[in-house]
Formats: sequence, structure tokens, C-alpha cells
Amino acid sequence: VTTVDPLEEKHGVEIDEARSARAETRRPTAKQLEDILFTPLRVLDHGFVRVVDYMGDDAAVVQAARVSYGKGTRKLNEDRGLIRYLLRNRHTTPFEMAEIKFHIKLPIFVARQWIRHRTANVNEYSARYSILDREFYLPARKHLAAQSTQNRQGRSTLLTDDESRSVLDLLRRDAERAYDGYIELLNEDDTGAQIDRNRTGLARELARINLSLGFYTQWYWKIDLHNLLHFLRLRADTHAQYEIRAYAEQILSIVKLWVPLTYEAFDEYILGAVSLSRTGLRVVCRLLNGEKVDQPSSGLSQREWDELITVLGMNR
Amino acid sequence: VTTVDPLEEKHGVEIDEARSARAETRRPTAKQLEDILFTPLRVLDHGFVRVVDYMGDDAAVVQAARVSYGKGTRKLNEDRGLIRYLLRNRHTTPFEMAEIKFHIKLPIFVARQWIRHRTANVNEYSARYSILDREFYLPARKHLAAQSTQNRQGRSTLLTDDESRSVLDLLRRDAERAYDGYIELLNEDDTGAQIDRNRTGLARELARINLSLGFYTQWYWKIDLHNLLHFLRLRADTHAQYEIRAYAEQILSIVKLWVPLTYEAFDEYILGAVSLSRTGLRVVCRLLNGEKVDQPSSGLSQREWDELITVLGMNR
Amino acid sequence: VTTVDPLEEKHGVEIDEARSARAETRRPTAKQLEDILFTPLRVLDHGFVRVVDYMGDDAAVVQAARVSYGKGTRKLNEDRGLIRYLLRNRHTTPFEMAEIKFHIKLPIFVARQWIRHRTANVNEYSARYSILDREFYLPARKHLAAQSTQNRQGRSTLLTDDESRSVLDLLRRDAERAYDGYIELLNEDDTGAQIDRNRTGLARELARINLSLGFYTQWYWKIDLHNLLHFLRLRADTHAQYEIRAYAEQILSIVKLWVPLTYEAFDEYILGAVSLSRTGLRVVCRLLNGEKVDQPSSGLSQREWDELITVLGMNR
Amino acid sequence: VTTVDPLEEKHGVEIDEARSARAETRRPTAKQLEDILFTPLRVLDHGFVRVVDYMGDDAAVVQAARVSYGKGTRKLNEDRGLIRYLLRNRHTTPFEMAEIKFHIKLPIFVARQWIRHRTANVNEYSARYSILDREFYLPARKHLAAQSTQNRQGRSTLLTDDESRSVLDLLRRDAERAYDGYIELLNEDDTGAQIDRNRTGLARELARINLSLGFYTQWYWKIDLHNLLHFLRLRADTHAQYEIRAYAEQILSIVKLWVPLTYEAFDEYILGAVSLSRTGLRVVCRLLNGEKVDQPSSGLSQREWDELITVLGMNR
Repeated sequence: VTTVDPLEEKHGVEIDEARSARAETRRPTAKQLEDILFTPLRVLDHGFVRVVDYMGDDAAVVQAARVSYGKGTRKLNEDRGLIRYLLRNRHTTPFEMAEIKFHIKLPIFVARQWIRHRTANVNEYSARYSILDREFYLPARKHLAAQSTQNRQGRSTLLTDDESRSVLDLLRRDAERAYDGYIELLNEDDTGAQIDRNRTGLARELARINLSLGFYTQWYWKIDLHNLLHFLRLRADTHAQYEIRAYAEQILSIVKLWVPLTYEAFDEYILGAVSLSRTGLRVVCRLLNGEKVDQPSSGLSQREWDELITVLGMNR
Repeated sequence: VTTVDPLEEKHGVEIDEARSARAETRRPTAKQLEDILFTPLRVLDHGFVRVVDYMGDDAAVVQAARVSYGKGTRKLNEDRGLIRYLLRNRHTTPFEMAEIKFHIKLPIFVARQWIRHRTANVNEYSARYSILDREFYLPARKHLAAQSTQNRQGRSTLLTDDESRSVLDLLRRDAERAYDGYIELLNEDDTGAQIDRNRTGLARELARINLSLGFYTQWYWKIDLHNLLHFLRLRADTHAQYEIRAYAEQILSIVKLWVPLTYEAFDEYILGAVSLSRTGLRVVCRLLNGEKVDQPSSGLSQREWDELITVLGMNR
Repeated sequence: VTTVDPLEEKHGVEIDEARSARAETRRPTAKQLEDILFTPLRVLDHGFVRVVDYMGDDAAVVQAARVSYGKGTRKLNEDRGLIRYLLRNRHTTPFEMAEIKFHIKLPIFVARQWIRHRTANVNEYSARYSILDREFYLPARKHLAAQSTQNRQGRSTLLTDDESRSVLDLLRRDAERAYDGYIELLNEDDTGAQIDRNRTGLARELARINLSLGFYTQWYWKIDLHNLLHFLRLRADTHAQYEIRAYAEQILSIVKLWVPLTYEAFDEYILGAVSLSRTGLRVVCRLLNGEKVDQPSSGLSQREWDELITVLGMNR
Repeated sequence: VTTVDPLEEKHGVEIDEARSARAETRRPTAKQLEDILFTPLRVLDHGFVRVVDYMGDDAAVVQAARVSYGKGTRKLNEDRGLIRYLLRNRHTTPFEMAEIKFHIKLPIFVARQWIRHRTANVNEYSARYSILDREFYLPARKHLAAQSTQNRQGRSTLLTDDESRSVLDLLRRDAERAYDGYIELLNEDDTGAQIDRNRTGLARELARINLSLGFYTQWYWKIDLHNLLHFLRLRADTHAQYEIRAYAEQILSIVKLWVPLTYEAFDEYILGAVSLSRTGLRVVCRLLNGEKVDQPSSGLSQREWDELITVLGMNR
């Protein structure tokens, strides 16, 4: 967890105020999460994730599971064991009983992927009402890579230093121009003050279309623990685009603080797990039985065979 | 808010423990809701509603709205005004940013109506695992009414005392028998101890089918404020079946403690509001213009005409 | 696919009419599904599943996937391969593009489990408006089993013939009594005609609470293919209660007719698949590497070890 | 309904093929909708909406409602009356029983508003896999307006001809530049062919961030009738941004062809309806009673008073 303090001049005071407030509550509290409440944690070049509220913790999951199982399960007394049992057997509803709310700053193209997860609540900064800041994403050099030819949605080899420099120059130049055009269209500066009194600015809801997908937006995002784990499973995966994965990884570190038992079970049964297909399982059984199996006799396609061999650590 | 304390012997100690715990938090707290946290509030003869956790309050709604509106709305400084504006204009997403979790005990037939609201999280006591208590709903006399002939889903005139007595006798007798049969099928008492050592009991998941829809179940139910208001709009309505309405009304009293500004706006713009159809509005305009309008000239069906006249207080 | 023809006197004519109607359409049609459209397929003793409408087929999944992948994937030309790729890699959204609508008759206790799947559309027969039929579920003898002591939610050994007879007698007797009580409360027969002119019947919404969870209800249930597969994964599983599994299996047979390529992939990658945990995978790798591994050295709990050994076919 | 035929060279053939295919089905068909199936209907300068599949029609709504109401409602025989009753009384579930699927081409900023409606299925063209076309939105002159000062999210007076020309020049210039930069980053033309063999192009998922929010994307969008009406209520409203409203209006014309009875009821009870608050209703009753009411004595805020007076046609 890398803390940024203060993230930005403009939010610094508000955040300090929120952090210094204290109240007494009868609700369950998650001590380690309280420590970072409201603190923006840096992601990418201008983004952040910060927790602004939460409800429940590992105990909330256990409590909900116990209602379902009722008297009959009084003996399942160990919380850790119960949480592992639930996750292992895909008993997902108890994990819906804990909830977390984030304030997130992220590039628009990341927001476009993110919003596809429909089981969350969102309030986004509206550029119909307000003026966006001159803040856009520029990838670090180590993330500038060529299109993968294997995987149609991935990156492969890194660009050379020269190529990277050209790319960044172009991205910066076009983003600056886009923002300049935006301000010219608005005929307002970012405080809302008119620039040229002799002409009328364009409505904000239209002027924004000049901005590119690399500009930062921000939102409040609230989600229950079950759906958050599902989001993380997909977005902390190596197949996810690097930029959204960076957010997912920061959130994973938060989940670890918030619900450590759930995090541990999630790592064991979901993040670190592999699924064997019906045919893949048969191959493993034959191998364990001492049979020789090769791709043609496996019943698997070449691609699935290669993946299986990799997963089993048999590709030397 | 009628408090039951302690609701039941068996839960009394646990609830007292939960209520006496205190922790410090940086989260927003709702003082008046804290006062009744964990306390079961009676509904029907054996049911209850109790708040077991919550996240956010009126300020959470305002905060989320301000993110959406951004800098442009710094002047909308008054929380009450903003909340009223949001509800009046059906800007619903900020109300999704507050969340509440209830522990509810309710008859199965009420649970069946309730669960139709899909945008909530539920963990129900499972009769596959556990044995249900000998607790069933018997309506109070004042709720024993005949089928309405006007409204196919409603009640009309009350039964006579004699008829009521027969109904309650029958309901009680059949419920007792159903439970006796349930226990005989299980061959277990409600502590799980075997009754007759010379025969095998039936699996719980099957034995339960002998119970009737009046028996009580319980669940944890978690929902955001927007969806809760939608639930209350439908279930606190006079067209809702009395038994679920009794729960909705108890929950309304909780909402008033939790988010008083939202409650007030909800009462003004939703609970107390009426919708005029395109034709109904035209009728009102004509009336205000001094025209004589009767049903045939109104363009409304007899039923809609009657309803409009009632709503406008013109039926004397 | 076991067909029931005609399922019931009362629906026979309507169903025949619907089946005999024909129209021309430009929409994709699924020939094999058309053949059984509207035909009730028997489940349990009085239940059924029948398809009443559908939208799309395997080609709809492919078409939606191709929109996502756009020009870049023109080469992924083989539908079967693409569908397998999608399911294997959990690209679930294209499967949301096909939809199916069922008319289902099922016992209330099954309906209560079923409705927990929230991502579907439901219209249930309402006992607030209408009178339920004298139809209740009686398990076949081969499904009357004792409570499992291993698995707190399952069944184990079958009851003896004598025990089964007692169970069925009790279930039948109590269901008959419950229905008799229901009719007495209503003071209406199942055609809605008043029985005793000298007393007032109880409103339907109240009288129904005398019925038990074994009585049949019915509903229209509409769901997209992705969510249907999720439902089937959970409910066609051996851990699901037998009675809902019987419905899931009948629906599986329908899915096979409707979207054969998707069904095949679902069987390979979901139904027949196993998930190895992070530790479980490590155990498999060690075994394949020729190491001796036993439970204590595996890092797995006894239960997980036993399950792994069973899955790998190593428990002789 | 303005038809575009053929919409574009590249899709023309495919669409003609789909349109010419015919099959026999037992499913309900909507004759008037079949006539425009697959035909792209123009929206904005390069966008379109075309129906690619559907399930059910007005009769599906009625059929689902009849299941709910069962025998008790055999007399409610008139479909039109039932549909009006359902919509008027917010019985929404029967409208979930019809479904429609669109292929839509729309600017990214419109897609960003649209996707906030979570109860739909979406497959979007992915710029991680594929290359976007050089197509961007340029508003027609009559839609170039200044920021409203009344309504923080709206437009007010039109720009002058000179101002409009400058705006369009700027928007076009920046969009062209953004696309040029995109292609330079990719080092591929829009057929995927490499441009400069001496350097490596940037991965597609990164290059796309240079494009602006006015560029067109496309998706398959599938939704049930109830949720579609909700979408239309919000997006065909005068408060919606013009560009998304243009799509909503085109879709409204499709709904009218598809489910004419539902459309008519929707227009009467939702689109043309007004909601009177508790206090607003009291004002109307007082006025009808012959009382003099002005804003101070009304209990309404100045803004609500003005709106009420306007709605009632009393502001002359």
C-alpha cells in the first residue's frame, strides 16, 4: 500500500478533515481499514483509489452464513474454516453481506471497461455540469508495447526507446491540443470564468466530446464483497489490460486489510486456482496412472494441451 | 417505534452483547439509528425487524450527488434542498450510496412476496440444515376479512366474531398438526435429538414440505437506500397485503430515524404524490379553466374518472 | 425428453392451438426447439417444464462475440471453436444474447429455492387472486432418505419400505387436510362458487397460508442463456436438492436441443470440469513429478485431500 | 421511421442476406416489426439503430399477466384494457416478458451515458481487438448552443453562424488529428496492414486512448420491454442530452411498431403523465375548490410553484 499524502492540493484539506473526525459506533469496525480510510492510494500517473466507507468485515460473512445454516451448524465454530468452506463451495451470498465504497480517479478508457461490471453503484463526475481538469494518462515507458500476435487483445514486446519517445510525444501533444480545443470551445477556464467576452461558449455537454479517452474522470463506486471479488478475479488477471489491472491490484491490497480471512481464501481457491476441463482432468488422471499421453492422444486441441502442460509445470 | 426487549429468551443475551459493544470509527454515523441498532422491533405476532448494520446517511447521498455535479454545483450548498431536488427529479443513483442491513423474522408467505424484490442481498435460515421453530402466524381478528369483489387482490368487510373464531381455530389446528407431522417425519425434537430410536427420520429438506406458509422463517436482508425506497413505495401502499405492509411500516419508521431528510422528501414526492395521466391532466386543466367536465366528456374510463374525482377531493 | 401429451385436460386445447399456429419470420429459428415448443415435459409427479418462447441460438452467441472482436477476428471463423473459446475463457456476455422463456409447474418449496436466482424474469400464479389446485408433491419411494450426517444439507440411506409407507401416509394425510382447511376457509370450491351461503369466506390472500410447501404453483420464467447456464451449473449439481435437480436436468435436455454447440462446451468446461486450489495444483504437480505426497505433507485439510484423491481417481 | 438503405457499403450485403432469409416458426411474431427487421434506421450523422431480434409482443405481456392472475381473472378479457391497467398501476413484471435486441452505432460519449442503464445485455465492438473507423460525430448547426445558466446540465441559446462555424472547424480539425495520431501510433491502416516496416506499432488497447469521445463505436444491446420503457422515459425526456434523445426517439418509433398497445398506454400513463407532490396536490384541490392560492400561501418553493403553474397551463 503506497500512500500519497496529500494527493492533491485541492483535496488535501477536505481529506484531512474527514480523516480526523471520530465517532463512536456499535457497528463492527475493521481496524486496519480504518487506518487508511479516506487516504488516496496512488494508481497510474494521476489516478487514485481511496476507501470512503465500508460495512461489515469477515465476521459479517460468517454471521450471514450462520443465519442460513441455523442451529444445525453451531459446531462449525471456526470462522476461518467456515469462510474457506464457503468460498471453496461457491456459497457466494454471505459475501454479499459486506460492502465497500471507493472514490476512484481513473482514465476514461479504464472507466469504460470498469463500468461493464453492472452489479455496483456508481456516481461519476459529470462533464455535462462541470469542467474536467487538464489531466490525462501517459503510460510509463515500460508499458509501451506492441500488439500481440498470439493474443489478439494483448501486448507483446516493448517498444524501443526511440519508438517510446515518439509515442509519448504524440500522446502528449494530441492530449494537450484536445484540452486546448476543449477550453476554446467552452470559452471558460477551469474555474468557470469566461475567457473571451465577445463570443459565446459551447455547452459543456458538447464541448467535452473534444477530449480523448486518456483524460481522467472520477467516481464513487460502491460494491458488495462478493461482486468485488468477481471484479478482482477478472481484472487482476494477467489477461486484463495493464491499466485496469493496476487498479485491481491496489484494491486487492485493500481487501487484504479489510477482510484478511476472505482474502486468504480467495487467493487459495480463486486467484491461485486452475480449472481442468472434463478432458483435461482425464489427461491428468491418465498421467498419474503412469500412462504416456501426448497431444494427439489427449483429446485436447494444441492450444489447450499447451496450456495444460504449462499449468502442470511439465514444459521444460 | 415499538421496542421489544428482550424479544426472545434465546436471542436476548446475544443481542445485549452486540448492543453493548462500542468502537471508534472514522465513518459517518447516524446517531438516532445507533440508538436502536440490534434492537428487535415487533411486527405481527412473532415477527420482528432489527437493524444489524448500515453504511452512510443523508450526507452520503449529498456527497455522491456532489461528485456527479462536481465544481459546477458548489453553490447548491443546502443538503435538504439538494436531497429534495434529487428525489423530485428522479436522480436515483445518489440514494444507492447508502446501505442498510436488517435481520427479519417473517411468515413464509410474506417472504415469498418480499423476495420478488431482486435488488437486495439475502441470507435465509435454511430448513435443509436446521429445524424450524413451532411458530406460525395467526392474524389478529381485526385483519380477518372477506375477499373483496371490487379489487380481486384485496380484503373487504370483516368477518363476524363467530366466523373469526372458526377461522382462527382452523388455522391454529392445522398449523399445529402440520408441525406435529413435521417433527414425526424428522424423528428429531427441535434440539436435534432423536425421538424414537427404532426408526429413521426423514431428511430435513423433505420433512419441511409438511409445514404451511404461515410458519415463520428469518433472514438477513441488505439493500441500498434507493431500492429500499422503491420497496417501501410498493409495500407500504394500501394495495399491498396487510401482512407485508406491517413490515414496510416498521421499516419506514426506521428510515425516518436513519435519513430524516430523505424520508421527508420521500413522503412529499413519492408517498404522498399522485400521477395524473395525459388525459387526467387535461381534465384538471379544463376544470381549472372553469369548464364543466363529466365522465363521458373527460375521455377517461369510468374507473379512472372515479379515481381522479376521489384524488381531487371532488366526490362529496 | 419425455413428453406428456396431453399434460392436463384443462390446458390440452390451448396448448394444441398454440402448437398448431405457424408464422413466417426473418428471425433466426432453432429447428429442434421448435419441435417441442409449448409441449409440457414432465418433472416430478405433477410438475412440468415447457418452452413458450425463445430468442436466438448458437449463432446469436457467435454474432455477438464477433461484434466485440470486430474486424480483428474475421479469421476466427469456426462457430464451434469460438463458442468453446468463449466458455473456456469465461467470456460470458455473448451468452447473454440468447433468451428463453418457460412455463413451469413446481412445488412451492422448489420455487423458494429457484427464486434465489435473481437474474431472471418471473410471473407467478397468484394465490391472492386465484384458487390453487388440490395438487401436492409426494416423493417417489426411492427419494425418501434419511438426513445425511456427513453433509448437513443432504440425504443418505433410503428409508425402509415400512418407514416410507408411514412417511407417505403422513404427507398425504396432512396435505389433504391442509387443502380441506383451505377450501373451508375460502368457502369457495375451485371454480370460485360459494359453498355455504350462510357464512362469509376468508380472503384468498389469507386462506392460502393454510397450504403447505409441497403444493404446486406455476410461473413464467424468462432468462438469458448465460444466467441459465449458471443456474444449471448450481442446480444440476449433485449437491442440489433432488427435487430442483429434476427440473434442472429436464432443462439441460432442452438446452441441448436449443444450442447444441453451447451445450457441448458447457459440458466440457463447466459441468465436467474441476477446480484445483492453489495448494491442490501444487500437490498434482508434485505427484506428476514422481514425489510421494500424503495428506500431512500436502498442505491440504483431510477433507480437501479426500476430495482431491477422489477427483483424481486415486482412491482405490 | 426514416430508413437508410443501404446504410453503408460494407454492411449492405450482410444485411440484405439477413433480410431475405425466411423461416417458419411457432413463436408469436410481430408483423410490423418483421418489416423493418435488420434495416438500419439513421440517427445523428453516422449512427443507426437496427433491430436484429425480438421475443414476444403485446400478447406476451397479456399472457404473463394472466398467469399471475390465474383463473380469477378470466373476465379481464380485453388485452388493451389489461395492458393499460398494468401500466397504470405499475405492475411491471409482465412487461419484462418481451425482449428486443438492437445493433446500434453511436458516439462514445453517448455510449457512456447509455451504459449507465445496467439492466441490459451489451456486447460492444472492442478497440482492444480491432481498429475503429474514421467516423466521428459533428453536431448539426441547429444543435450548437450555449451552456444554460438556468439548468446546469442543459443548452440554451443557439450560437451565431460564425461561432458555429468556428466550433465545427475546431471539432473536425481535432478529430482528424486524433485519428491521424491513432493510425500513426498503430502503424497499421484500417485493414490492419502495417504502414511503416521500419518501426513497431503500439498495441491497439493503448493506441485507442488518442481518440476522442466523439468517435463512433457500436454494440449489440438487448433489453426487456419494461426496462426499455424505463430507459425511454429518462432518455426521450427533454432533460436528456439531445444526442441520446435522438436515439431514444428512433427507438420509440420502433416500440410503436412492435407493441402498439403498450406504446399507447406508455404514452398516456408515463410519457404524458405528470406527478403532483403531496403539497402540489393540495394546491390543485384548493384551486378547484375556488380558493385563491399564490406561491407564498402554496407551501411550494418558487421553482416548484412555477413548474406547477406551467404544467396546469395557468401561466399566461
